[in-house]
Formats: sequence, C-alpha cells, structure tokens
Amino acid sequence: MNILIVLAHPERKSFNGALVDTAKGTLERAGHEVQIDDLYAENFDPVERAEWYANHNNNEYFAALTEQSNHFKAKQLPEDVNREISRLDWADLVIFQFPLWWHAQPAILKGWFDRVLVYGGLYSGRMRYDHGYFRGKKAMCSVTTGSPAQTFMPFGRAGNMVEWLWPFHSSLNYIGFNVLPPNVSYGVQAGGIQYQEKAAFEAHLETQKTDWASRLRDIEQETPIPFTGWSDWNEDGVLRHDHPMRWRP
Amino acid sequence: MNILIVLAHPERKSFNGALVDTAKGTLERAGHEVQIDDLYAENFDPVERAEWYANHNNNEYFAALTEQSNHFKAKQLPEDVNREISRLDWADLVIFQFPLWWHAQPAILKGWFDRVLVYGGLYSGRMRYDHGYFRGKKAMCSVTTGSPAQTFMPFGRAGNMVEWLWPFHSSLNYIGFNVLPPNVSYGVQAGGIQYQEKAAFEAHLETQKTDWASRLRDIEQETPIPFTGWSDWNEDGVLRHDHPMRWRP
Repeated sequence: MNILIVLAHPERKSFNGALVDTAKGTLERAGHEVQIDDLYAENFDPVERAEWYANHNNNEYFAALTEQSNHFKAKQLPEDVNREISRLDWADLVIFQFPLWWHAQPAILKGWFDRVLVYGGLYSGRMRYDHGYFRGKKAMCSVTTGSPAQTFMPFGRAGNMVEWLWPFHSSLNYIGFNVLPPNVSYGVQAGGIQYQEKAAFEAHLETQKTDWASRLRDIEQETPIPFTGWSDWNEDGVLRHDHPMRWRP
Repeated sequence: MNILIVLAHPERKSFNGALVDTAKGTLERAGHEVQIDDLYAENFDPVERAEWYANHNNNEYFAALTEQSNHFKAKQLPEDVNREISRLDWADLVIFQFPLWWHAQPAILKGWFDRVLVYGGLYSGRMRYDHGYFRGKKAMCSVTTGSPAQTFMPFGRAGNMVEWLWPFHSSLNYIGFNVLPPNVSYGVQAGGIQYQEKAAFEAHLETQKTDWASRLRDIEQETPIPFTGWSDWNEDGVLRHDHPMRWRP
C-alpha cells in the first residue's frame, strides 16, 4: 500500500512524532511505501478565506464553496491545497496522528479539512458517503490524550473517545474513506506536567510504540467501522422506513 | 448582562453575520451591553506553536502547556491572547456564532480554544469543570448548517446535532461555563449552491432572525445543559459507584 501519515503536532520530537517514526519504520519493513505530511513543518495555514482565491466569482461576497468549486474546475486552487490533494490521490491508507486538544484535532488539522477537501472537487451533493471521492481507500486516527485512561472509560469524567472522534470519523466517511478504528495513547503529557522525569516518558512511549507497531503489521486485514450509505436512505436523506436498523433493540 | 459574541465566518455579510447583528440589536434593546469579537476581521491566527512564546523554558523541546502556564504567570502571553482573555473576563454570557464545517467549528475558532484557553491560567488540574475559571458565567453556540433540517433529525444521514456540538459544549463545561442549548439554523448555504435566488436567502434569514431574537429576549431565564461535576466523581475521575446516574434505565 501507499500510506500517507498526516502529523499535526508543533514538536517533532514529541510522543506524537515518535509514533509517526514507529509507524513509518514498521510499515516500510512490511513492504509499504510511506510518506509523512508534517503540517507544522510545512507551516500549513488552516484558515479558509477569500484571499486564497485568485478569481472571485463575486468580489462583494465571499462564498467559500462557490470559490472552491470554481477554482478546482479552473485548476486554480492554492498550491498547498493541490499538494495535499496529490498526496491523498497517491495514498491507499491515510493515518492522522495528532494530540486531542479541546476534544478534537488541533486547529492546523481542522483547517486542513476546511481548505483541502474542496467542494465540487473532492465532494458534491451526490459524491459523498459511500459514493465519495475516496471510496475504496482507508483512513484512521492515531491520537494522544492528556487525561489518563480511566477517565475516558465508561462513566469517566473525560468522556467517551468514540464521541470525541465521531465528528472526525464522520468527515472521513463523508468523503468516502473506509474508517478504521483509532489508535489511542492515553495519559500523554510532555513537558513535565505529568511525567516527573524523562524515564517515565520513555517507558510509556516504548509500550505505546510496541502496541502500535504490532497493530500496524496487520493493518491491511482490519475491518472498518460500519456506516450507513445511499442505499439505506430515502429521498429525504433519512433511513428508509422499512430499514432493519430502525428496529434494533 | 455583558454579552460577548464571538463570530467565526469569513464573510461579514453572511447569514452568520446577520444573526450576529440580530443578536446585538435584540440584546441591546433588552438593556444588555454587547461586544462583537469578529475573529476573521481581527485576522486571528489559530495555530498554537513555539513562536508565540518569548521565553522558552526549553529551546530544544516545545511543550505547549508548559509555555502557556509560564507565560501566563510571567504576564508574557501573546497580545491577541490577552485581548481575548480580557473580553472573556468582561462577559457574563458568551455566544459563539459559526457555520458547522466538517462537523465542527471552523479552524479559526478551534484554534481560539487551543491558544486562548491557557493551561495554568484559565484551567488546571483542579480548576476545571464546575470548579472552572468561568464558573457562574454562561456560554452557548449559534450554528448554521449546509444540509437541510430533515437530514439532522433522528435516522437522518447528516447525523445528530447533539453529537456534533458535544466536543464544543464539553470544552465550555471544562472551563466552567454553564452551557445553554444551541441555536441551530439548518439548510443555510450562501453563494448560489442551495439558494437559487437572493429572495430565498432573505426569506430564510428573516425567519431565523425572528426565531433567534424571540429566544434572546428571555435568554437570562434559560436552564443550562446538565453536566456531572467534582462531587459526582471518585478519586479516579469516574462516576462514584453509588451514584444514581449509574442506575438510570
């Protein structure tokens, strides 16, 4: 497989960065091609705005989706957006490595969605979900959290990881990816807040690297998270009234 | 009340911008003080990175939370972060107005959380949840969606708005706010994709402005979304084993 790892962390020597190196080494040894897309290193600007578009449809009113669509068709998208789309076109599997900040991906990665996944190019009214642009390809998240594991377990105060990643996973599904279950490393906080010494950081990292590498060696065999699709919905975009999922206990 | 409206939309003349104007007018007529915080107009940079911090604790390794905490204590936070914190300190109610992009707030607002809500200043291990910095204050979201309302209803393909806003609401709760239920305007897409003509845009906007103004006139009386708090959890950060919520049907 061609595998793209999108990294969104401001410190390359971080726990997140180390997990990327583990993934690259493990996957290459298994015979895959790997590219790292380090959004911080590339100084990616995540803010969608009028200034990105050379030829406005309407200089008085900025409509992001209209400009995305027009500039895609005219092959006038911003250079960094084109570069990201080329990488996605190349990849069979995309791994997003990031720390969970405020219950979601860092802004640099949130805006990667806002800017790179252009309307009229990578999705449209009909080219979505299981008819999406990236159908047949796979994607997944690998995330770290500051709070410890037990607070994310049932009844824990930090909440449910399935819920925190649901918007991200749903966006991947929206553009057609098969979404694999996430890799989660709990209780990771660099910089001395949680780890009293470097040894504790290294010990935790070693465990997580081993787990991650072990999973990645068989990543091709994994089953994606199930989502509903076009054949499940009626013309209003709602689950068909005779659909068996309406009758689940 | 002092009310801060944080706007995250790249076009001030948008549906989102109009809802801000409606809110400001309505709330001022009801006797409140209102400030608008237009993140695009202020060119807010949402990317948390080493360059924001003048005096690094460690030049070899950027640990965001350590630098946030140290620079808060030394009164050396970036100017824009200080400005945002002053606005939050002033406000009794904060309204976040934004379009739902990729199942979440736009990157400019996601990074507002990443950069402004500084560790060691606006939250800490103990200063969180119902002991949070903003306890006693209220906050809420007002969002617009591209997809129409029926696709967000039960069994709709666009999913559940409670789930999309859960990370945002949980972050507001984490820093101590009482979170009011959101205002949601479904099926809003400017720029000709959905509206075939300006008249349809205006008609939809008029309805939503009326609903929003009607709700805002009594906003002080609203009941917040319930969350658990410190007295509900044991020392592991998990709901107490004798807690009645464990036995809900």
